[in-house]
This record gives sequence, structure tokens and C-alpha cells, in this order.
Amino acid sequence: MKNTLGTNVKITLFGESHGEAIGAVLDGIAPGITVDSDFIANQLSLRRPVGQISTPRVETDKFEIISGVFEGKTTGTPVCIVIPNENTKSKDYGEISSKARPGHADFTAYEKYHGFEDYRGGGHFSGRITAGIVAAGAIAISALRQKGIFIGTHISRLAGIEDKAFSDIESEIFQLNNKEFAVIDNTKAEEMKQAILNAKSQGDSVGGVLETAVIGMPVGVGEPWFDSIESMLSHALFSIPAIKGVEFGAGFAIADMKGSEANDSFRMKNGLVTTLTNNNGGINGGISNGMPITFRCAVKPTPTISKAQQTIDYIKKEDTELTAKGRHDPCIVHRARVVVDSITAIVLCDILSQRFGTDWLVK
Amino acid sequence: MKNTLGTNVKITLFGESHGEAIGAVLDGIAPGITVDSDFIANQLSLRRPVGQISTPRVETDKFEIISGVFEGKTTGTPVCIVIPNENTKSKDYGEISSKARPGHADFTAYEKYHGFEDYRGGGHFSGRITAGIVAAGAIAISALRQKGIFIGTHISRLAGIEDKAFSDIESEIFQLNNKEFAVIDNTKAEEMKQAILNAKSQGDSVGGVLETAVIGMPVGVGEPWFDSIESMLSHALFSIPAIKGVEFGAGFAIADMKGSEANDSFRMKNGLVTTLTNNNGGINGGISNGMPITFRCAVKPTPTISKAQQTIDYIKKEDTELTAKGRHDPCIVHRARVVVDSITAIVLCDILSQRFGTDWLVK
Amino acid sequence: MKNTLGTNVKITLFGESHGEAIGAVLDGIAPGITVDSDFIANQLSLRRPVGQISTPRVETDKFEIISGVFEGKTTGTPVCIVIPNENTKSKDYGEISSKARPGHADFTAYEKYHGFEDYRGGGHFSGRITAGIVAAGAIAISALRQKGIFIGTHISRLAGIEDKAFSDIESEIFQLNNKEFAVIDNTKAEEMKQAILNAKSQGDSVGGVLETAVIGMPVGVGEPWFDSIESMLSHALFSIPAIKGVEFGAGFAIADMKGSEANDSFRMKNGLVTTLTNNNGGINGGISNGMPITFRCAVKPTPTISKAQQTIDYIKKEDTELTAKGRHDPCIVHRARVVVDSITAIVLCDILSQRFGTDWLVK
Amino acid sequence: MKNTLGTNVKITLFGESHGEAIGAVLDGIAPGITVDSDFIANQLSLRRPVGQISTPRVETDKFEIISGVFEGKTTGTPVCIVIPNENTKSKDYGEISSKARPGHADFTAYEKYHGFEDYRGGGHFSGRITAGIVAAGAIAISALRQKGIFIGTHISRLAGIEDKAFSDIESEIFQLNNKEFAVIDNTKAEEMKQAILNAKSQGDSVGGVLETAVIGMPVGVGEPWFDSIESMLSHALFSIPAIKGVEFGAGFAIADMKGSEANDSFRMKNGLVTTLTNNNGGINGGISNGMPITFRCAVKPTPTISKAQQTIDYIKKEDTELTAKGRHDPCIVHRARVVVDSITAIVLCDILSQRFGTDWLVK
Repeated sequence: MKNTLGTNVKITLFGESHGEAIGAVLDGIAPGITVDSDFIANQLSLRRPVGQISTPRVETDKFEIISGVFEGKTTGTPVCIVIPNENTKSKDYGEISSKARPGHADFTAYEKYHGFEDYRGGGHFSGRITAGIVAAGAIAISALRQKGIFIGTHISRLAGIEDKAFSDIESEIFQLNNKEFAVIDNTKAEEMKQAILNAKSQGDSVGGVLETAVIGMPVGVGEPWFDSIESMLSHALFSIPAIKGVEFGAGFAIADMKGSEANDSFRMKNGLVTTLTNNNGGINGGISNGMPITFRCAVKPTPTISKAQQTIDYIKKEDTELTAKGRHDPCIVHRARVVVDSITAIVLCDILSQRFGTDWLVK
Repeated sequence: MKNTLGTNVKITLFGESHGEAIGAVLDGIAPGITVDSDFIANQLSLRRPVGQISTPRVETDKFEIISGVFEGKTTGTPVCIVIPNENTKSKDYGEISSKARPGHADFTAYEKYHGFEDYRGGGHFSGRITAGIVAAGAIAISALRQKGIFIGTHISRLAGIEDKAFSDIESEIFQLNNKEFAVIDNTKAEEMKQAILNAKSQGDSVGGVLETAVIGMPVGVGEPWFDSIESMLSHALFSIPAIKGVEFGAGFAIADMKGSEANDSFRMKNGLVTTLTNNNGGINGGISNGMPITFRCAVKPTPTISKAQQTIDYIKKEDTELTAKGRHDPCIVHRARVVVDSITAIVLCDILSQRFGTDWLVK
Repeated sequence: MKNTLGTNVKITLFGESHGEAIGAVLDGIAPGITVDSDFIANQLSLRRPVGQISTPRVETDKFEIISGVFEGKTTGTPVCIVIPNENTKSKDYGEISSKARPGHADFTAYEKYHGFEDYRGGGHFSGRITAGIVAAGAIAISALRQKGIFIGTHISRLAGIEDKAFSDIESEIFQLNNKEFAVIDNTKAEEMKQAILNAKSQGDSVGGVLETAVIGMPVGVGEPWFDSIESMLSHALFSIPAIKGVEFGAGFAIADMKGSEANDSFRMKNGLVTTLTNNNGGINGGISNGMPITFRCAVKPTPTISKAQQTIDYIKKEDTELTAKGRHDPCIVHRARVVVDSITAIVLCDILSQRFGTDWLVK
Repeated sequence: MKNTLGTNVKITLFGESHGEAIGAVLDGIAPGITVDSDFIANQLSLRRPVGQISTPRVETDKFEIISGVFEGKTTGTPVCIVIPNENTKSKDYGEISSKARPGHADFTAYEKYHGFEDYRGGGHFSGRITAGIVAAGAIAISALRQKGIFIGTHISRLAGIEDKAFSDIESEIFQLNNKEFAVIDNTKAEEMKQAILNAKSQGDSVGGVLETAVIGMPVGVGEPWFDSIESMLSHALFSIPAIKGVEFGAGFAIADMKGSEANDSFRMKNGLVTTLTNNNGGINGGISNGMPITFRCAVKPTPTISKAQQTIDYIKKEDTELTAKGRHDPCIVHRARVVVDSITAIVLCDILSQRFGTDWLVK
């Protein structure tokens, strides 16, 4: 198990879906960062299932910061945030305990942990664990904001429905951060939500693509070869359970371009170096070039669905069928948005610290 | 700089394009692995520019293994491989030393390294550095093969031309490993090569997509949350300079599927657990499920082109124009193939060692 | 801050002396290890201040395991143990908040954390944080024992009074593990305790030396150069606040020996390789040789004393005087014993995992 | 194998005693550090065997810097230094290839590397590998010096003969750096050398203690708990083969002090915080307090001696006798001095980078 991520700024995750609590330890974050409980609570609310488009599991996410914060500010020592589990209906899951849910880690966890894993509700593999990332990430986001670095993510695509692309990143990411359902074009929100409800009514689920932009990153940050910005961010992003693809700048579309199209020409603008296009997503040679860092994550449709599915009993090693009864989400794309923002913030704090030191984020 | 990758099995890179030598240190690899110089030489030849479709820079890649191999086998101590540089025409590059080549790391390296970087031929950011990955990776590939784990990559797409998809992975990856221009459908090779030559004649370049499959991975390998197989592989793959996107299994296409389509149903087959589809690329919850591990990498068109480009002088910080005169590749997709295979092998050796120990690969 | 230790088996610490709770996350430990709450409680009791020879601070150390344990066994996922703080009399410390206690981290923490540190009771630098090591270490000790690896530590020296040396390690370490005041020669216990009380009555404190032996380590474990057994253990041991010296085998005494005396001659014994002496502490070239691993730690006298001391006000940067009023220990040597055992166990689990994998410790 | 040390500034070692070359890669070191070949050569000469008191093996240590240095300065990318092996008389060692030299890693390496290790001349476990540390360390020493941080080590004790203690560190460490045989009291040099020759004439060897001081370290550096200065330095120091003990400040002697003696009282002096004594070796709570950082290393007598010794044949697993014929040192204490200085410099660069960033050392 590797539940610690980062070199100088580290996050450590713990917890199981139906255990006593889940949470995270954030270490290496600079002292003096204001810790705003309301902001953390609000970030957690963005991840929490809400309304008809999500699971009816009620998650209040009452978090406790049990270390590392003193008089409202980070101390520079590890911040441990604990989020107790509530309303965990283990019985719903009991019946299917040895039927592998397709698309889930039930079978692979059984093999890796020799049958000792806590299988209830996905155990340590539950998406619920991402709440720890969100709570810790809220502090990292606050740290970056005071240095003028801002992150925003929108639902670029959901069930095949496209949101508008970023056009005025500087203002759009602020608007996105205040939206519960993060689209640039609000008219798409209802369309997407309807697609989620349709999937739900069919006992099915839908996926999508999240697009993220980061502004304000200093030029010259990133640690090639192996700790390039792309390497560091993708490592973290692919830890989020449902993410199956990550692309920077033009991403896969760049593969079909000519060099003369793909290259981002440099131009001076108001004394600053800029590029005329941003197909490289603000990164050259793994190092930030001062343009917005942009990337997209493919989020798969929630694997837990109500429809009957072929599967195996992973203990008896025999074919069987599964009809899930637990509470589940017909879509997690909108909920994953804040997880992406959060882990991105933690990784950027780490990358910045490598060149500038952990002191750099001290206010 | 972070030029060391890995936890238990590590690779460390060094070198600049026009310095004395480039190379790599491979540490943590099991003792007793046969080191076949011909195989290493052959792997290097697959990365080397050859013929009209590549740069005329002659790279003989005469490598020397200066440590860690004794009587033809790895000793278990660090293997240092040095590849001297030859035929380095620094003059071609001298003139453009402070004109940022768009799409390259010239400007970002200048900012990060305070102007002390070796800018000749891209310096430490040259694609040539990947020869060290290939040489070290050849040993990792040998180690995996003796345990029945095989890796193969094909040019899935180049300049918009699609190769056939994998259909019979078990036999196709062996054929691919023997091909200089790795396509499954040989008729596509000429079409792709022609597209490269067309781009070349226009002073331009083209990109593409590489698709990789790994067979023989034991079930239950991967270290979630943060050292999931996707996290570990993407971290390494995004270190390869031209790669701007990585996706596993169905990747970005999974975002448009329904859960009932995306989920890979489990079925027993000859006493083994298999899945009917492989949209998750052989990975559930970050852990191998026994199916082939599949992923695709977007490779951007070579940024160095002969066409005139707008850019800046990054020392004077003023607008200028650049017409590259150095030797360069109109395409590196076909050359990147063996780099992907090699770094994949190193990462898999590392992931396997976490659960099973570095001794597991001892023959 | 670096509050995470280890490569494959990791411990992460958090907490402050007067915060809500302290604790630890143990990650990478094999699944299936029996977690015995009574054993953990007993280990914590060995660290806890007891009787006249310790601080009157009442620490009940009621711990909660909030993740990573299911049906009494480790799951293989992170074990988070939280130990709430109780009976924390912050007022005692309030008055001295900007007077640097000599020998403590008050001043250095102030400088490092820019004045944002939680200074109450030593904050994150309090010896109380070692309770997290002990709780997590109990699980590591259990894991090792099932593989026949046992650790024992005695108070080799306290206030200048010497305990007997190890003579029959195999039986002595079991006796030591059951003793509250760990000496081999019980007659020394009273003498040592009296020395502690004498120091206490003078408002002073005393230190000592702990000697540890590990039996049952497989031959051939250790990862030179940089993860030699000595390197890994000393790294961890020097994290324990009061330890100022670590030596293996004959340690500093070996410096005065001739090579012919220092060398441990090999001999076969009952088919096993043994050495006639053990001046190298069971380690050759950083790798275990099958003999007991032995080392000694110098523990300084508790820095907090009642006597008036010269010091500075670290905010005003001016000379002042300090007379400590808080509760404190006249000696922590006997309490540090179980901390040494615990961190040793965690490090050995990690070292073993590097060669044999994290699976090796699965029962 | 773990041949890479460090978090932000890393050193990677490679090579075997009788292989083609040994060397090191230094990564993460700031760009713009002047690389003075004469200084490196001089540092290597201090490690090299010289005269009657050392092995007659001729090591010219002609090093080549094959990457990371451009126009006489570090580029910020990995510095690879290769030191070819010369004059390697493998035959001397051939005969004893399966007789375990007591005190050496022959047997343990055989067990760990399954018999695939390069056993000639100690292979990867030879003290010769430390030349890579010295060459890389010379660059780290240069980097620190330009920031006013200086390191000096003297032979505190050799064959039981004591050198004077440090009394005026600021001037003494500069004198020590220029001495081939580093003692503070020159009259002790001859006495110590005579003791070495006496041991040699008996076919035996002697050991000693090295004492190091570092001046100029900024206050507030160190990353507790686990990357305390003591933890980081001891980890590195114990990687040096012959070192069996490390102590900071008063070290083991502090165990016999009272708290009132051991505590270093703070006093303001010329506006700076100082302590009246330095029993804590310039470190409180794992963080630098501005006083000189002081530590001592116990160096064991060279294990290779000419006297006949009892041992085993580690392949046949049977008792035998060994009379070494290879060239060897009757003492390595004086040669280890520069190795200690070098690894200390590398570790300090790393520790400083954690708080201040790798950029901090840019001139």
C-alpha cells in the first residue's frame, strides 16, 4: 500500500467506507496558512452526494482537525483531519460480499489482501476516501490562493454532452468555484442532469470528462525528467478511482496536428512571455512556462449499477450473477470535480516546494 | 531536478545532448538476470533515427556497461550504462542559443536553471536522453520475460492514419517486438511513412498515438491509493518529453459509455478469472486483475521544424523569428515506441517488487 | 516537516502535546496480522509515566484504531490510531511561552515555523508524540514475532549505574519484554530508581543508555549502500527526541580494537553460520549475517528541570531566566525503551519488505 | 539495493572494486556552482592511499565529469562523475573467493545476491566506492562554502591516541581542510602514524574516531520528526562501510550528565542567539540552533589483515582458515575523514533544500 503521496508536501490517506472514520494527514504544508472551517465544509459539500442525481447515502462530513492547526492557522506540523463515518448500512452490502462487482476493486483487493480486506462498501477503495483529499486539499488551495495561484475545473463533457470550452479562464475559474454543478455554459447543466436521471431510471450510470485550468503558476517550476509537472499531476490524478485518462493541453488531439500547428509560438505581451496558443497546456519540457496549466481527466461511469451483471464469486471462483442493492450514484463526474481541484492543489504545493522550499508558501 | 524514478527498482538518468555522454543507472534489479549485449544494442537500434523518416544525426549508440554486471549477469548492485555522444554538431545550434524553440524547453529551462543550463541541442531535455531509458529498460524487459511477462507497443495512429487495433494480443506483441516500424497491419506502415516524408518535405512534422499491451502480469499487483498501476505508469510515461496524454483501457472513450457498457464482466475461463471486455485495461482499483494491461500515449509532433516560427529571444525578452537549422526528425512516434516499452518494464519491475520483493525477479 | 518514515512500510506521525489528539498511520503492513488491543495497551503502559520516578501527568492513552483493522486483523490498508489528549494543563506552560527551555526545541521550532507553532507543552516536539510510535509499533512487533523475529531492550546504564550486559540474549529479551523497568540484573533496578528520585529531589534529571538486541533476522537483509541496516535503524532512532548517540555491536569501543580483535570469526554451528564474537552487531556491509543485531542508544537527561536556568526570550531576543513549573520527568530512559523497540520493529518490517516484499509478513 | 540517497539533492552510487569504473550521479544540486577540477582532485587525493600507512594499491583517481557541468559550472541537471579503475590485481583475490573475510560483506553479499555478486576485491562493498562520494561531495562542499557553511573533520582518536578537542572551531576547520593527516595537535600525527605502522608490522590494523564540526548553518533547518538533522546525517554516515557509531554533541557522554549540566543555556551575543555549551551539537529537536553542528563517528579497524583467521567457506558452508594476501590498509581512519566531510555536505545541501528549495544554493 502506498497511501502517502508527495516529496516535501505529503498527503497520507486512511479509512474504509464502513469503518469508524476516514481522513488524511497533510504534512509539509507551510506554517501560517489560514484554515477556514467554512471553506473546508463548503469544499466537502461539493463532493457530497446531493439531490436526485446522487446516491441517497447521507454524508454529513463533519470533520475534525485534530492536529496541526493552532489559533486558526497551520502550525507547519502535520494536519490530521478525521471525518467520522455515519449512516453506513453494511447490510446492503453483506449479501454480495463475495460477488465481484464488475469495474470495482472487490476481486483485485481480495487477491492482493489475501481475503483480509474490509469489503464492506468497497472498504478502502470507496470513493468516500476522497473526502480526505478534499479536506486536506482545501488547505492547499488556500495556501496557493494567497500566492495568486488559482485552480478551476468544469464538467467538459457528461454523457456525451459538451460544455463550452474555457475562453476567458481568468474569470471563468472563479465562477466555477462557486457552482455546485460546475459548467461554464449554464444551459448545459440541466441537459447533463437530465442525462444522469435518465441513466438512473434505467438502473445505469454515465461518465464524462473534467477539464482543469491553473493560473498564476510561476515560470520555471517542475522537476524533469521524472518529476515533470505532467508526471506529478498524472500520478496523483490517476489515484482517483474512476479516472482512466489524463491529457495536458491539446492532449490526444495534438497527435493529429502538424508541428507547425501544435507548437505554441512565444510572444512578449506587456513585458511577460506568453504563447499564442496553449496546446502544451502551459508546460514545456515538464516545466511551467507561465501560461495556464490545463488538463483533462476522463471519468468512467460509476461501476455500481442496478442492472443485473455477469460476474464471478471470487472466493468460490465460479460464475454467478449480481444485482446490486446498495445505494449508489448514477454519476460521479460532478462530485469528482472538487477532488481533482484538491489533489491538484496538493501536488502544486509539493512541486513549488521542490524549487522554492516549503517556506515559500508561508504567508 | 528529479532524475531518479522508482521505489525499490530505480532508474537514474544523466547526460546532455552535446555533452560527453548520456546514460542511466539501474538500481534494485534482481541479481542473476542475463544481460545480453546484442539485445540491448537491438533495442537501442529501434530508438535510433534510421533512414529518410528520421534525423540524419548519426547515433551509433555504442554503450558501455561499467558496473553491476559480472560474467554476463546482473550482480544485484547498480548497473551503470554509459553511451558516449558522437557526431554532435554544436554549431548548428549555436546561432539559436537564445531563441526559444516553440514547443521545446529552451525558455523554461533557462528560467529554471538561471541561464546555467547546457542549451546545446536541447541539453538535458534532448530526446537523446531516452537512450539511457532504453538501455536500462532492456535489462528490465529481460527480467520480466523470464517470469512470463511481455510488453508490446504499436503505432496505433500516425498523422491521422490508424493501425488495426490489438485483436490477438498474445501473438501480436511478439511480432511487434521484431518490427522496426511497429504496426499490426503492415499495409499501414508505408502509408504512415509517406505521411512522415510529406511532412518533412514541407519542413513540418507529425505526431501519433502509441498503444501498449502487457501480458502475464500476476493478479493483485499495484499499491493504491497513490501507487496504483495507472499512477506509477503515467508518472513514468509523462516523463517522456513528447507525451501529452495517457489513457488506460478504453480511456477517454469510457467517458461516453454507460456503466453497463464500461463494466468488464467477470467470467471463469479454464479455471482462471477473466473479463469479457477490457475497458479498464486490466486494472481495477489500481490493481492488476490478470487481463492484459493496456494503455495509449499521445505523442506530439516533433517541435523542431524547418518552417519559420514566431518566438522570443528569452534572454533579451523580445519578439523574434526562428528558422531552425539543426538536424531534426519529422516524426518520433516510431522511435518513441521502444522508449515506452522500456520505461514500462522498469516501472513494472518496481511495482512487482513492492508486493513480492526485489528477490522475486531472481531467476 | 517529514513525519513519514519508510519505503514500503511507512509510519506517519501527527499531533501536539496539548492539541485534541496525537496518533499515527501505519501503512504497508501486511494483511492478516492479529491486532491485540490488550497488547497495544500494555505497550503504551510501558511508555506511560508511572509512579514517583515520572511526571505526574496522567496519560491514560485510550487509543482508537479508526481504520485498517477488520475483524481483529490488519486489512493491509492504512492503520490509523488516534490517542486523544487528556488532562492537558496548558496554563502551566502559558507563562513560559516565549522563554526558550534549554535543550528543547522551543527556540528552533519558533525559527523554523515562523512563530506559528503550537508551543503548548512542546507541541509537536513533545515526547508524548512517541505514543503513536508505540501503538503502531505494537502491530509491527506482532508481525515480526509470527516470523520468529524478537526484539528486546534493557536499560544498559542510567545515571552512571550499569546493568549487566546481555549474556543469554534468547531468554533475556523475553524476560525484558515483561518488565516494567527493563534491566537484566534486577538488583540494579532499585539503585537506578533511587538515582532518579535523587535527581528529582534536586529539581534535576538523569539520562542513560539503552541496549537493544534483535534475534531471528534472516541472513542477507539490508539494502546497501544507503539503506544499510545501520542507516535505516539510526535514521529512525535519532528521530526519538532525546537520543544523541547510536552505536552498533561494539560501537565506539571498536575504535580502540585491533582488526584481529574486532573481526568476528565465522564458524559453522549446527549447520548454521555463526560468528564467535559479535562486535559488528550482526551486520556486515550493512546486511544481516544471522547473528543478533545489537545496538545502543544514548538518551540524554530530560531537558525540563525545576532548577533555574539562564536562557533567552526568543521573541524579544533578550536574555532572561527560566524556572520551569510544568510537570516533567526526572528521567525518561525507562520510558524510551518501548519507543526504541517499537520504531525498531517498524524499520525491520520495512527492510524485510524491500527484499522479500510486503507480502512476506502475511501470516 | 538502495544506492540513491536524498530527497531533493540526491547522490546515486555505482561501481565495483575490480569493474571498469566506479562513480556517482549528483542530482538536484543548484545551477551555477563553480566546479573546480583541482579541488575535486585534491579531495580525492585525501581519500587515496598514500605512503607506508596505506595500501600499496595505486589509485590515480582520474575522474571524468561526463554530464551536468557546462563552461565550468553546474547546470542544475545531474552531474555524473566516472572514475575508471586501474591497477586492479584480481588474482590476489581470486584464491579466496569463497572464504568469507571476517568483518567484510563477502558472506552477507553472497546470501543477499544469490552468488551473483562481483566478489573481486569486495566488489560493490569496497571502500573504493567512497571515491564517488568524495568527488560528488566536493561540489556540494563548494556550494555550501559560497553560502558561508564550512565543514571540518579531525582524527579525534586513533589506536587509542587522542587528538586535542576542538577549541576554536572557526579557525581549526580551515587548517584541517588543508592537512593530509587531519589532526588539530600536529604532535599527535607522528604518534598515530607510528601506531599504524606497528599494527602493519604485526599484520594487523587499527581504528579510531573522527570528529566533525559544521559552522555557518542557518538557524531553523531540519525536518522533524523523521528528517531531523541527526536522522539525515546518521543515515548517510552509517552508509560508510567502517562506521559503527555516530554521536552528536556530547553523544554517549551526555547519558551520564545531569539535566542541569547537559542543557545548553541560551544567551544573546552580539545580537545573535548562542548557547554557553554545545552538548546538543547545535541541534535542538532535530533543528539547527545556529551553534556549530558537531558529531563523532567510530571507525572500526580495517577488517582485512594479514594474520591468519578462522572463517568459513560460504559456498561449501564449512569451517576453514584464511590468510589474506591482497593489498590492504592497516588503517583507514585518516582516509575516511574526507568521506565524512563529503557525505555531510551532500546531506546538508539536501536538508537546506527542503526548507529553502534547491534554488537557495544558486549563487
